[in-house]
Amino acid sequence: MHGVQLGSGLQSLNPEPPEELPAQENLLLAAAYVSDAQYNRNVPFQTSPQAIRLYYFYNHWMMGMATYIFICVDLSLALFEEPALFPLPFVATALTEVLCLTAFSVRLVHFAKVTPQMVFWKDMKNICIMVTIMVTLIDLIIYGSLAAVHIHSIRWTRALRPVFLINFPESRQTRRAFRSIRNTLPDILYVFLLFLFSVLMFSLIALKLFGDRGLKTAEGAPYFTNILEIAFELYVLVTTANNPDIMMPAYNVNWWYSLYFITYIIINTYIFMSVFLAVVYNNYRKHLKNEIRKLAYLKRHKMMQAFHILKVKVGTEFVVKEATWKQLAKVVAPDISSSHLELLLRISDEGQQGYVDKMSFLRLADLLNIQVVTVNLRRHPLEAWVPRVYQSSMSLLVQRVVRHRIFVWAYDVIILINAIFIALDEKHLFISYAEWLFLTLYIIEILLKLYTYEPRAYFGRKQYWNWFDALIIFAALVATTASAAIQSARKYNSRQILDIVLILRILRLLRVIITIERFRVIVTTLINIGPTMLTFGGLVFVVYYTFAVIGMEIFYGKVQFFDPNFTSPDALVCGNPALKGSAFARDRYCKNNFNDLASSFIVLMELTVVNQWHVLAGGFALVTHQAAKLYFILFHIVVVILIVNIFIAFILEAFFVAYSLGKSEIETAIEKKIQELGVGIQEEDVHDWKLAGNMGTVDSTFSVNDDDSRRKALKGLYFRIASKTPGSLLHPATLL
Amino acid sequence: MHGVQLGSGLQSLNPEPPEELPAQENLLLAAAYVSDAQYNRNVPFQTSPQAIRLYYFYNHWMMGMATYIFICVDLSLALFEEPALFPLPFVATALTEVLCLTAFSVRLVHFAKVTPQMVFWKDMKNICIMVTIMVTLIDLIIYGSLAAVHIHSIRWTRALRPVFLINFPESRQTRRAFRSIRNTLPDILYVFLLFLFSVLMFSLIALKLFGDRGLKTAEGAPYFTNILEIAFELYVLVTTANNPDIMMPAYNVNWWYSLYFITYIIINTYIFMSVFLAVVYNNYRKHLKNEIRKLAYLKRHKMMQAFHILKVKVGTEFVVKEATWKQLAKVVAPDISSSHLELLLRISDEGQQGYVDKMSFLRLADLLNIQVVTVNLRRHPLEAWVPRVYQSSMSLLVQRVVRHRIFVWAYDVIILINAIFIALDEKHLFISYAEWLFLTLYIIEILLKLYTYEPRAYFGRKQYWNWFDALIIFAALVATTASAAIQSARKYNSRQILDIVLILRILRLLRVIITIERFRVIVTTLINIGPTMLTFGGLVFVVYYTFAVIGMEIFYGKVQFFDPNFTSPDALVCGNPALKGSAFARDRYCKNNFNDLASSFIVLMELTVVNQWHVLAGGFALVTHQAAKLYFILFHIVVVILIVNIFIAFILEAFFVAYSLGKSEIETAIEKKIQELGVGIQEEDVHDWKLAGNMGTVDSTFSVNDDDSRRKALKGLYFRIASKTPGSLLHPATLL
Repeated sequence: MHGVQLGSGLQSLNPEPPEELPAQENLLLAAAYVSDAQYNRNVPFQTSPQAIRLYYFYNHWMMGMATYIFICVDLSLALFEEPALFPLPFVATALTEVLCLTAFSVRLVHFAKVTPQMVFWKDMKNICIMVTIMVTLIDLIIYGSLAAVHIHSIRWTRALRPVFLINFPESRQTRRAFRSIRNTLPDILYVFLLFLFSVLMFSLIALKLFGDRGLKTAEGAPYFTNILEIAFELYVLVTTANNPDIMMPAYNVNWWYSLYFITYIIINTYIFMSVFLAVVYNNYRKHLKNEIRKLAYLKRHKMMQAFHILKVKVGTEFVVKEATWKQLAKVVAPDISSSHLELLLRISDEGQQGYVDKMSFLRLADLLNIQVVTVNLRRHPLEAWVPRVYQSSMSLLVQRVVRHRIFVWAYDVIILINAIFIALDEKHLFISYAEWLFLTLYIIEILLKLYTYEPRAYFGRKQYWNWFDALIIFAALVATTASAAIQSARKYNSRQILDIVLILRILRLLRVIITIERFRVIVTTLINIGPTMLTFGGLVFVVYYTFAVIGMEIFYGKVQFFDPNFTSPDALVCGNPALKGSAFARDRYCKNNFNDLASSFIVLMELTVVNQWHVLAGGFALVTHQAAKLYFILFHIVVVILIVNIFIAFILEAFFVAYSLGKSEIETAIEKKIQELGVGIQEEDVHDWKLAGNMGTVDSTFSVNDDDSRRKALKGLYFRIASKTPGSLLHPATLL
Repeated sequence: MHGVQLGSGLQSLNPEPPEELPAQENLLLAAAYVSDAQYNRNVPFQTSPQAIRLYYFYNHWMMGMATYIFICVDLSLALFEEPALFPLPFVATALTEVLCLTAFSVRLVHFAKVTPQMVFWKDMKNICIMVTIMVTLIDLIIYGSLAAVHIHSIRWTRALRPVFLINFPESRQTRRAFRSIRNTLPDILYVFLLFLFSVLMFSLIALKLFGDRGLKTAEGAPYFTNILEIAFELYVLVTTANNPDIMMPAYNVNWWYSLYFITYIIINTYIFMSVFLAVVYNNYRKHLKNEIRKLAYLKRHKMMQAFHILKVKVGTEFVVKEATWKQLAKVVAPDISSSHLELLLRISDEGQQGYVDKMSFLRLADLLNIQVVTVNLRRHPLEAWVPRVYQSSMSLLVQRVVRHRIFVWAYDVIILINAIFIALDEKHLFISYAEWLFLTLYIIEILLKLYTYEPRAYFGRKQYWNWFDALIIFAALVATTASAAIQSARKYNSRQILDIVLILRILRLLRVIITIERFRVIVTTLINIGPTMLTFGGLVFVVYYTFAVIGMEIFYGKVQFFDPNFTSPDALVCGNPALKGSAFARDRYCKNNFNDLASSFIVLMELTVVNQWHVLAGGFALVTHQAAKLYFILFHIVVVILIVNIFIAFILEAFFVAYSLGKSEIETAIEKKIQELGVGIQEEDVHDWKLAGNMGTVDSTFSVNDDDSRRKALKGLYFRIASKTPGSLLHPATLL
C-alpha cells in the first residue's frame, strides 16, 4: 500500500516548471502537501485543480466531524436495538442504520474521487468498508423480513460496526495500534503455545496427583478430577484470580502439595507473564522506530514536492520567495496570527534575504506543529481606570503579597484543612459553618488574584489550572447554597445532582499537588500522554464493542437483576435456578450481565481487571454451556495479554522518553529565535507564572532584554513554547 | 568504599621491579589479581606473601561453603525455635546459634587479617556483621535468663539473621539486588506519595458519595462508612483483589456509580502501577549500565596490576613470557586441561612469538570465564570390540535410521500419545498394559542411541537432556514396577513416593518442546537467566524471612488449623471465635497462619500473588487489631511494588539483550581461533548433535578441515563454545 503511495508521489515530483509567482492552483497543491506533512496524512491524491479542491473539501474538519458523528450514531444503535437499554422499534433503528451506511458510502465515493483509481482499489481499508456496508444491508433485509413473519434471527453484522471506526482514514492512530498488535502476533504466538503446553503439562500432573484422592473444594465440589476443568482452573491461576483457594484443599491435606502450586505460579504467573510483556514491549519498540522513520521519510518527501512546485531560481540555488512563503503559510494555517507568522519567517529566513532556502522550507510543517503561545501584554484594567488607587502603596503591598510564594502555600494549607473538614461529619453545625468560611476564603483568593493579575491573561486560553480553580469554587458555592436550601426544606433528597458538585469540591485538592515541583513533573508527563491513552481507549472500545455484541447474543436474559436488596428467592439466584449455590449468585453478581450494552461493557471491564473473572465465567457457563468459558478465555487473551501489555509498554516507553529526552531540535531553534528577538519569557518567569497564573513577572524580562527597536516590531507580544512535552514530533505519544 | 579499594590498589601499582622469571610470591600475587578479575571480586587485600596465602585460604571454596552452611544452619534455627515446626529445647537452639556466631566471628577475623585495617573498619558490611553478632548475643542472654525465671520475652534479633546472608562478601549478587532497590527508592517515593494522595482523595469522594446511603456489602456489613476502611479497601482495589465485589453494592443501586470505580481503576490500577514499573525499570537500566562500567574498570585495573608484576621487557615493549603465562594460568585454573591451555595460548600469543603482549594479557580473565567444552573423539566401543558386526550394512542402516530426524519426530509422536494415555483413566486394564508398551519403546530408544553414539559422549558432562531423558525413563520403569507390585498387594496406599516419580514421567513431555527450534530459543533464554533468578530467590528469601519472623511474633497461635474436613465447629472458625462469619473462615483459610516458619512462608507467598490478600489481612486483623493490616500493606509495598517490579524489569532486560545481542567479542575471537585451528565443530553439526546427543557427525568436520599437522598437535580433541548465552560477561544475568 505504501509502495503505491510513494510511487504515485514520485510521478508528480517534477511537474511543469513553475512561474515566478505561483498560480492559485499551484499554491493550493503545495499547501495540500504541506498540510499533509503537518498532520502526517498519507493519502495520495490526484493533482488536477478540481481534485485538489475536492481534496480540501474532503479534509475539511466539518467533513471529518460529520463522519465521526455518523460512526457514533451507528455504534450507539446497539443501545436501542434488542437487547436494549432504551428500546426503540426495529424500523427506527434500521432506518437510522441505513442513513449511516449511506453517509459512509458518500464519504467513500468522495474519497474515490480524490484519490487515484488504482490506489483506491488496492487499499484494503476501502474494500473493507464496502464489503461491510454490503453485508450489513443484506443482514438488515434478511433480519427485517424474518422479523416481519415473527422469526427471530441474529443480527450478526452488528459486531462488524467497529470496522467503520477503524478503517476511515481519520482513525490513523487506532489503526496504528492495531497494526502494532498484528506485528506482535507471530512472536507472541510461540510464547503462548509454550505457555499453553506448560499449563497442560501441569494439568496432567495435577490430575495424577490429586485426581483420585476424593478431595473437595470449600464449596464441596469434587477437586481436580477432570482434565478440562483442571486446565481451566490452572489458566485462571495464571491470572491469580483463584489463588489461594485453588491450593487450599490440597494444602490442607499435605504441606508438600503447596510446592506444586508455588512452582506453577513462579513459572506460569511470573515468568511467562513477564515474557509476554517482554515480547510485546520489544515488538512495540521495534515497530515504533520503523514508524518514526517512515513518517519522517514521508513528511520530507511531501515537503520536497511542495518545494518543487513553488521554487524559483535565485543565483545558483532554488528557493521560495518570501511572499510565496507567506501566502502558503496563510493557506495552510488560515488562523495564524501575523506576529506568529513573522516569527516563523524570521526563523526560516535567517539572513533576512527575502527568500527561504530549501532546508528551511522543509522545516515548515514541523514549525507549524509547534504551538507558540502569543502572550498579549496588557495593563491591568484597574490601572487604566483608577491608576492612582491601583498604584498606591497599600495596593502595591497587596499585589506583592499575592505574588509571593507564601500566599500560595498558605492556601495549600487551607485546602488541606478543608479536606479534613470534608472528611469529618457534615451534620455537625460548626463544621457546616466552617464550609462557608472556606468558601469565603477561596472567593477572596480569586478576587485577590484578579486584582493582581490581568483578568484576560488569568483566564487565558492555556490557563487550565486557573479555569479549573474558578470552576470548582463556583460549583462549591452553588452546591453549598443548594445543599443548605434543600436541607432546610426537607431532609436529604435528590442528592444525585449535588454528588457531582461535591466531587468537584474534593478535586480542589489536586491543586496542592501542582505546587510541588517533583509531583508536577509526574502529573505533566501523565497529562501529556493523555491524548495517546485515548487512542488506547479507541482500541479497547472496538474490542469491547465486538465482544459486547457477541456476548449479548449468547447471554441475553440468562441472568436477571431484580432489586438491590435481594429480597425474593428469585433475586438471590438471579432469576435462573441453574445458579443456585454457585459462587456467582453467592457473591451477588446478578447485575453483571449481558442484558444491554452498558451492562456488557461493565462486565467486560471487570473481566479486564481480571479478579473474579472465573466466577463470572463460571456463572455464565452454568446458565449456558461449559464451552462459554472459551468466550472469557479469548477475551482474556486479547485484552489482558495483548492490549494491556501494549498499554504498559506504551507507558514504559513514554516515561523513558520523558526521562531521557529534552526538547526537539526544532523547538530549540524556535526558542533560540524567540530569545534572540528579545520577545521571550525567561524560564524562571515561566515557572513563577505557571505557579501563580501570573502575567506581571514579564516586567522583569522587559528590563533584561531592552532592545527597543525589535520590541516595537512585535509590539506588546511575547512568545513562549506552549508545551514542554519532550519532542512532540517524535514522541511515541503522537505515534501510537 | 570503592574509592578506598581503588586507592589501595593504586598504591601497589608499581611494586619492586620483577626478575626475569617471577618468584613464587609474585606469581601468587598476580594469580590472585587475575582470579579476582575473573570472578569479579572487589576485596582489597594486603600484598605481603603471608597475607596472600591467607587470602588464598580465605577464597578457597571450602571456606565459602563452610560459611554458607553456618548461615543456613543459623537461618534454619527458626524451624526449631518456638513457634516451631520441629520443636527443640531452647538450650539446643541457643547453643547452635552461639556456634554459628562464633563461626561468623572467625570468618570476620580471617577477613580482617587479609584486608588492610583501614579498609576493614570503613566497610559498613563488617560493622553490620559485628553489631549483629553482639546484639544477637545480648538478646540471647536476656531471653535465656528471663526464660529461666519463666518470663516470656521476644527474640527480636531473629529478624536480623538475614544480615549475615547479605553482608558476607560471598553474597555479592544479593547485595547488588538490594543496592538496586535502594537506588530506586528516591524516585519511587514521589510516585508513591502521589499515588497515596490519589487514593486518599478518592476515599474522600467515596465517603461523601456512598457514606450515608445505608448500603450493605454482600456480607451485610456497612458499606463505605469509615474513611480508614475505605482507604484500605481502595488500596486493595489497586491490587484488583476485591474487584468487582467492592463495586457491586453501589452499582446495584445506580448504574452511574460504576463510573467512579472505572475511573479509579484506570488511574490507580493501570496508570500508577505501570508508572511504578517504569520508574523501577528505568532505574534498573541506569544502575545496570553503571555497574557494568565499574566492573569493567575494576577488572581491567586488576589485570593491569597482574601484568605489572609479571612483565619483562622484550624489545621496546613490556610483555609476559609464555612460560610465566602458563604458570599463571595453571595457578588461577588448576584443573584446566593442557589442550584447553594450549588453545588459550594460541589466542593470546597470536604470532607464536613466545610471549603474550599487554593487550592479550588483559583478556586472560575473560578468556578463562568462557567455557570451552573439550570434546574427546573416541570410537564407539563396539567398533573396537566387534568391528565386523558394527560396520555391517544392517548395523549401519540402524545407525543411519537413529541419526535421522524422522527418528526423533517419531518418538515425539510416541511421547504425545503417551501423554494422552496418562490423561486417561489408569485403572483400565488396556491402558495399564499400554504403559508397559511405552516403557519398552523408550528403553529401546535409549539402547539404540547408545548403540549409535559413543556412550561416554552421550552421557557427557554437558549433555543435560540426555541425562534428563535416561533418568526419567529409569524412574518411570521403577514407578510402573512398584505401582504394579503395590496394586497387586493392597489397593492404593503409600502413594506419596510414587507421586514424584509420576510427575517425572510427565516431565518427559518437555522433550517434545526442545525438538522445535522456536521453542528451544525461548526455553534456552529462560534457562540461561535461571541462575540470576536464583539471586531474586535470595532477595525474596531475605525479605520473607524477616517478615515471617515478625509475623510469627504478632500472629502466633491466633489462627488454628484442626483437620482438612472442618468437621468440628471450632475448626470452622479456625479455633478463634473472632473469625465467626468472616470471609477468612468462610473461605477455609485456617491453614494460612503464622504458627511456624513454613506456614508463614506460604502465607507470604500467597500475599505476593496478591489475590485474596485482603481476606488474609482482614482475618488477621480480626484476631488481633485493625492496625495489623499495616503489616500486610507494608509487605505489599516491599514485595509487590518493589521486588516483583524489579524482577519484571530484569526479565524484560534479559529478553531484550537476548533478542539484540550476538556473541561477545571475546567469544567470537575464541571461536575464530577454534575454527582456524581446524578443531571446531561446525554450527550445523552442533545443532544436529544437540538434537540427537550425537558425537558421530563430527566426522564431517574431519573431512572439511583436514589440516593434519594441527590436528595431531591437539590429537582427538575438538572444541566448541559451551554456552550460546549472549555475552556471559556483560549479560545482566551475571550482574544482578
